[in-house]
Amino acid sequence: MEDFFDLAHERYSVRRFSEEQIKKEELDRILEVARVSPTAHNNQPQKIIVLQSEEAISKAREVTKYAFNAPTILIICADRDEEWHGNDGHRAGATDAAIVTTSMMFQAFDEGIGSCWVRGFDEPTLREAFEIPENYEIVAMLPLGYPSEKSRPAPGWHDVRKPIEEMVKYI
Amino acid sequence: MEDFFDLAHERYSVRRFSEEQIKKEELDRILEVARVSPTAHNNQPQKIIVLQSEEAISKAREVTKYAFNAPTILIICADRDEEWHGNDGHRAGATDAAIVTTSMMFQAFDEGIGSCWVRGFDEPTLREAFEIPENYEIVAMLPLGYPSEKSRPAPGWHDVRKPIEEMVKYI
Repeated sequence: MEDFFDLAHERYSVRRFSEEQIKKEELDRILEVARVSPTAHNNQPQKIIVLQSEEAISKAREVTKYAFNAPTILIICADRDEEWHGNDGHRAGATDAAIVTTSMMFQAFDEGIGSCWVRGFDEPTLREAFEIPENYEIVAMLPLGYPSEKSRPAPGWHDVRKPIEEMVKYI
Repeated sequence: MEDFFDLAHERYSVRRFSEEQIKKEELDRILEVARVSPTAHNNQPQKIIVLQSEEAISKAREVTKYAFNAPTILIICADRDEEWHGNDGHRAGATDAAIVTTSMMFQAFDEGIGSCWVRGFDEPTLREAFEIPENYEIVAMLPLGYPSEKSRPAPGWHDVRKPIEEMVKYI
């Protein structure tokens, strides 16, 4: 890649994938980036479930339309027994898992692998389907695969961003 | 930068800063990366308060030790009135703000600017000090500045990461 600024601008959410499975060394690098992500107090509460078996992928497609046709799907969780707690009562696990997922999303795109951040699943349904323990907070699902030839940045509202003035205030 | 994999590995949390203010164009690029970040349903609920005035920086240092000696501090919030709600009741604003903050953290480091993700502040105290509206969920604080010559990756437990086997499960 050129620099991170370009990567952040070029990245888009991929929802149509090639049938070809991604390479093991590509997935390993994506997971390695998750491993070195910063987390609150370095507690590292992230837990990642990798779906690649035919059975797991079929089940994912049954329980949510947001599995798309990806050959690999990650479910990113935060272990409530390992997350950091702030003095003001804040629990940091979900934020940590979001840092981890964001890092993997960029690593994937930089490798030529598409992803789409998904939270539109029904949490109890996904938990039951994959027997995810109660102490794991399910934060995101990340379908992964090579973009199909038909994959394009989504037209219309998906791509429209508000002007900076609506987002930033200087004091 | 070389590639994102290296950036993710080289990045470390900077807690000692040079007194020199960062350049406006550097901050603009950091904020531009925040602007184009993906958010749930593209709702873009992120709100960023930039502290740079002498008064604001002094106040931040009074209310939290995690302002360190940074010349610029970002407070990243999610506007509850603008965040996406899932069918299962999930509110996505805090995750969106975490995606935004992670993106800015990488953009900063790629520009040679240090940052440290902070959530160790007392939420009500920070809210009162900067008159942050009740509908803004305060997700993170990001002190920004050039790393001091004495800045180094933190020794000891801050840097230690668990082995991948404790984090990943294949199904």
